Amino acid sequence: MELIDGKAIAATIKKEIAAEVEKIIAQGGKRPHLAAILVGHDGGSETYVANKVRACEECGFTSTLIRYEDDITEEQLLAKVDELNNDSDIDGFIVQLPLPKHIDEQKITEAIDYRKDVDGFHPVNAGRLAIGLPCFLSATPNGIMELLRRYNIETKGKKCVVLGRSNIVGKPMASLMMQKQIPGDATVTVCHSHTQDIAGECRNADIIIAALGQPHFVKADMVKEGAVIIDVGTTRVPNATRKQGFRLCGDVDFENVAPKCSFITPVPGGVGPMTIVSLMKNTLLAATHQIY
Amino acid sequence: MELIDGKAIAATIKKEIAAEVEKIIAQGGKRPHLAAILVGHDGGSETYVANKVRACEECGFTSTLIRYEDDITEEQLLAKVDELNNDSDIDGFIVQLPLPKHIDEQKITEAIDYRKDVDGFHPVNAGRLAIGLPCFLSATPNGIMELLRRYNIETKGKKCVVLGRSNIVGKPMASLMMQKQIPGDATVTVCHSHTQDIAGECRNADIIIAALGQPHFVKADMVKEGAVIIDVGTTRVPNATRKQGFRLCGDVDFENVAPKCSFITPVPGGVGPMTIVSLMKNTLLAATHQIY
Repeated sequence: MELIDGKAIAATIKKEIAAEVEKIIAQGGKRPHLAAILVGHDGGSETYVANKVRACEECGFTSTLIRYEDDITEEQLLAKVDELNNDSDIDGFIVQLPLPKHIDEQKITEAIDYRKDVDGFHPVNAGRLAIGLPCFLSATPNGIMELLRRYNIETKGKKCVVLGRSNIVGKPMASLMMQKQIPGDATVTVCHSHTQDIAGECRNADIIIAALGQPHFVKADMVKEGAVIIDVGTTRVPNATRKQGFRLCGDVDFENVAPKCSFITPVPGGVGPMTIVSLMKNTLLAATHQIY
Repeated sequence: MELIDGKAIAATIKKEIAAEVEKIIAQGGKRPHLAAILVGHDGGSETYVANKVRACEECGFTSTLIRYEDDITEEQLLAKVDELNNDSDIDGFIVQLPLPKHIDEQKITEAIDYRKDVDGFHPVNAGRLAIGLPCFLSATPNGIMELLRRYNIETKGKKCVVLGRSNIVGKPMASLMMQKQIPGDATVTVCHSHTQDIAGECRNADIIIAALGQPHFVKADMVKEGAVIIDVGTTRVPNATRKQGFRLCGDVDFENVAPKCSFITPVPGGVGPMTIVSLMKNTLLAATHQIY
């Protein structure tokens, strides 16, 4: 069993990006600039955004954090999105989800200029991903592709089961894995709450990508000997022994599943750091106009 | 075994659309107007476009057929697309594919205003389909969904195997079938040229949607008793006894597969007529601004 060290790969990629940025600066270019809008004080969102700001520093990017209280109106938020769309100094920006209930997340997502949509959530980017055209790839699936690439994990012709059909992980992940490309070219099955025999589907899989958000859902008896396991889950489970009062729990029963695997990602330190690195990559691509 | 009569369903839907159009006219509205650009003289394309024009008549739509010879330049075609985008009398239009090699099909597809892209090939429509938002659905997958709907075929929790991963059939079909909706909510597996055991995948399937373009690929021993079979194949196989010199051949060995099925589409007369009807539906949606 080989542990997929997302943290180490992410650190390597951040160094690669930082080197590219220094090259750009040396050639008289401009530092990539990522802006993030954070509404309210959700604990998870606070952490994610703080990590993104820190990653920007590590990559040599300029970052701008724009904070609003929970009572911001949809109109005000749309006005800010419009301002960022038209600010030529901002290469890309994200609006951290979730948003308060009185704001239509889809409306905000679609208001972002797709050429600055470094989260890859805009329909144009989702569509180009599905079709197999260059685009800002959704961060988590792209991070997973990068892990498969860097560990030379074979995917062509392999049976890949994706657990979960969310718009930001499950569906784009399935699209990328079935695409005529390497990594990719896999036979992909997407399972979800209505799947009748998830355990059976998993047992036949060479690669399982678990993105259900259900702690320890994937048990040892659901996994084939030698399988590759990618764990996207990051549920916060209360834990009094931790400083923060919780620990991150993956969708995979790591302790019992790991011994059966050829490769497995831990939680934390697997997919999580790669998601942020994908955002950094998209920002670099935006700043250097390599996609649009 | 029940035969899914796409031809009859298509005729019914065309009547439904025609009735809606007459209501619009009675209320002083404008007849939906579909334009089609046809480049060159490909036999298949000629037939498809002629069928689309005829369907427009049956639905009470105005149709405009714009023909070019093979030597039209990409620039000229883009200029025409731009003109149609800006022609307020045209509700929707299509550029019949394939195009001559010197023209970039993707460029043309993306040049079409997505609000008039009644084929549903533009990245915005592909993306909105993937995300599950209202859009112009790709015609063939949407036609198949309509058949499943009208025959009350259960899809929720069923194992659905999609053979083929094209951007216009396989991928959007998979997206629609895995969506949280009815029909949909299926456990979807997409198979393609690199799948190691297509026969095994098919044998486990409750629903097989065959879109490989390989005549009689799906044999009786690949099909579970009671399965639902949707045949998207329309390969022209030379046949001297036919007036046109060929017959349309599906991806399914109908004669031997049909007795095992609960439902099956014939070729011709199954999915084909539904594809054109989907285009008509999209045109009506465009004319009545129900999507954009």
